Amino acid sequence: MRNSSPDHELTLTTLHHSLTDPALESMNFLNEVSSRYPEAISFASGRPTEEFFDVKLIHDYIDTYCCYLKYDRGFSEAEVNQALFQYGRTKGIVHELIARQLRHDEGIDIDPEAIVVTVGCQEAMFVTVRALRADERDVLLAISPTYVGLTGAARLADMPVWPVRGGPLGIDLDDLVRQIGRARDAGLRPRACYVMPDFANPSGVSMTVPLRHRLLDLAAREQILLLEDNPYGLFHDGSQLPTLKALDTRRRVIYLGSFAKTGFPGARVGYVLADQRVDGGGGGVSLLADELSKIKSMLTVNTSVVTQAIIGGRLLEHDCSLITANHRETATYQRNLRQVLGGLGRRLTGSDVTWNRPRGGFFVVVTVPFLADDELLERSAREYRVLWTPMSHFYSDHGGLPHVRLAFSQLTPDLIETGLDRFAAFVAGQRSPS
Amino acid sequence: MRNSSPDHELTLTTLHHSLTDPALESMNFLNEVSSRYPEAISFASGRPTEEFFDVKLIHDYIDTYCCYLKYDRGFSEAEVNQALFQYGRTKGIVHELIARQLRHDEGIDIDPEAIVVTVGCQEAMFVTVRALRADERDVLLAISPTYVGLTGAARLADMPVWPVRGGPLGIDLDDLVRQIGRARDAGLRPRACYVMPDFANPSGVSMTVPLRHRLLDLAAREQILLLEDNPYGLFHDGSQLPTLKALDTRRRVIYLGSFAKTGFPGARVGYVLADQRVDGGGGGVSLLADELSKIKSMLTVNTSVVTQAIIGGRLLEHDCSLITANHRETATYQRNLRQVLGGLGRRLTGSDVTWNRPRGGFFVVVTVPFLADDELLERSAREYRVLWTPMSHFYSDHGGLPHVRLAFSQLTPDLIETGLDRFAAFVAGQRSPS
Repeated sequence: MRNSSPDHELTLTTLHHSLTDPALESMNFLNEVSSRYPEAISFASGRPTEEFFDVKLIHDYIDTYCCYLKYDRGFSEAEVNQALFQYGRTKGIVHELIARQLRHDEGIDIDPEAIVVTVGCQEAMFVTVRALRADERDVLLAISPTYVGLTGAARLADMPVWPVRGGPLGIDLDDLVRQIGRARDAGLRPRACYVMPDFANPSGVSMTVPLRHRLLDLAAREQILLLEDNPYGLFHDGSQLPTLKALDTRRRVIYLGSFAKTGFPGARVGYVLADQRVDGGGGGVSLLADELSKIKSMLTVNTSVVTQAIIGGRLLEHDCSLITANHRETATYQRNLRQVLGGLGRRLTGSDVTWNRPRGGFFVVVTVPFLADDELLERSAREYRVLWTPMSHFYSDHGGLPHVRLAFSQLTPDLIETGLDRFAAFVAGQRSPS
Repeated sequence: MRNSSPDHELTLTTLHHSLTDPALESMNFLNEVSSRYPEAISFASGRPTEEFFDVKLIHDYIDTYCCYLKYDRGFSEAEVNQALFQYGRTKGIVHELIARQLRHDEGIDIDPEAIVVTVGCQEAMFVTVRALRADERDVLLAISPTYVGLTGAARLADMPVWPVRGGPLGIDLDDLVRQIGRARDAGLRPRACYVMPDFANPSGVSMTVPLRHRLLDLAAREQILLLEDNPYGLFHDGSQLPTLKALDTRRRVIYLGSFAKTGFPGARVGYVLADQRVDGGGGGVSLLADELSKIKSMLTVNTSVVTQAIIGGRLLEHDCSLITANHRETATYQRNLRQVLGGLGRRLTGSDVTWNRPRGGFFVVVTVPFLADDELLERSAREYRVLWTPMSHFYSDHGGLPHVRLAFSQLTPDLIETGLDRFAAFVAGQRSPS
């Protein structure tokens, strides 16, 4: 069993299979194209706007949180120092502030003990999927197209992901039933279905309220969990819909929380809200959150108390409302959204190009009369200096599709105008290839 | 396959097996005993001293790092803000500073590209073990007694851990050869052996330099990797020994770095140094660090750039020397170590109690003339108000052993004296049970 190659210490085939996963290749390809064409205007990046980033805020947030510990919580100076320097509670220290925020912004009423603060939403996904993968019978369902971070987390836990048709409404319930049945017929356990009901990445689609209710009923009937991911829900035009978790009376929903867009990505703070009860045998019952926190303890011990203090300070400065905290950010994203939709309309109405019309979030999906694959993206970058994301990257079969994701969160009005000019020229160029 | 229990959403038996692992139970038990006897003096906690914690330092470190970006690296104000707020490079942003520290303090000369900055050393362990567990043939070897964090990370990756006798010298090479052979005879692949050559947790033992060389030779001959963990190495009495990585001319060592004790635990910053080359097939060769960073991207995206800035600032303020930065901390730990050794001597010399004499680190192991199990710990806490850790918790069979770990990092001289009085009374109490 010794290494057969004398020149190299290791071979990729003897490392974990996630390292050769197409999802990873796909991310690398997109990053690589972006870096090769730095002058291209990018509708590919879904990163938050940098307009309001200011290091001074980090200092302020820390001070605000320390004052809260001192004056609201009665900590001594030494206890404040300990709270920010020492190992911390595995489940986190800002769980009560997060519970207040969820009540305030989302109408979710939750025991703070059901929250595990994580290293971004990505860790929340991994600990959840790791817990649910007990053995080779367990499978995860996920709306297709699927956010690649979910696919990656599942790969690391050796959890197969079965696609469920998203379709124009955000989820095809008939297909969900079909996939659950297909899994059970094969002797497998479909544990949960991953969904992003609000301004989904990548589709931009939001589920209607009646559809949310039907999905919850179906989850209760079929005894599967729903993993609700909601990084963009607060960036709306005033027409906020209730989250699945807010409507969840039967504890079917595990809510995956992110502060990457409502706080800032560099903090790497997220959380998982898991109020499900776990029968431990012998009469013992625990919260699923407590089980997930055990997995977290083996992964990262606890989320940095400093970054939690920063997010905690941001929450405290805005009365635990992220809607209030993101007043300016939401205005930027809404302005950009209107400009992209208006700009597409002015350039492409009446053509064979169509697009959806989300009322918030970071993404619009454009349907073009040709297959928008990687080769075409490369040509778009090189010849038209405009970048976008082929929707095929979010499907498990990675086949070419006539759909393109346009992300507008990081752009300015000027860049959007010039970018759409270039995008329209690119589309026209595909109609009459030279 | 529906849940059979109507009252609970989930059962522990359908969650990942790591959740019922004895290692986890063991940690819970120890925490629980500590919390039930708050007035007991604790030789159980291996946390760093809180003597020098001061929130003002966090602000200073951030400012120092931002100045470095601005004046040394030529970042604009906007680029500094972006560096601390936005998503960051998956492999981290303080890798060059870490490489300077390793050269300065440890004589390790390394390409900074071989470093992946992680969410504490715990994440470094997980990404490494996850990468090495390609299929059911892969096993990990680990010096026994073993740090429980390693065991936990391995459980999450479904990687079996085979114990290798540590013994009084830190590793029994004959037993290592025996376990490698036994694994290969069973058709398995022993991928690596986990070791802590300097002031090991829990044994306190350091390997001699000749033994380190023999271990490196053996690893090269047997084509296994060594996972070197070194959280305590810098807290010595002036007699620093070269790390395995510093002696590693054949890229056999993956170095797991921690700033939990040399920086502070609340930052949750660590790293893995993996300069091994990976043959990707088709002529492509990558650094193992690049493969590990892909796993990290699926786990936590990147380590918080804010906490990296904090650790970076601490490094910069001390010319990238953690020996210099920890001048006061080392004095505290050395003073406590001398006091524990002296105090044991004054109380127990000539008795049937013995102990080892590390020249640094956080731990001393005491051998007592009875089995120091959980029940006895409970009695020690209740009747003698002194806590310690049964060494049995660090062995895979968890059987009772006549060994006790005393940690002294968080205590003051007064507490050590009183604590040793109580410990001596406890030991005497076991000799002549009432």
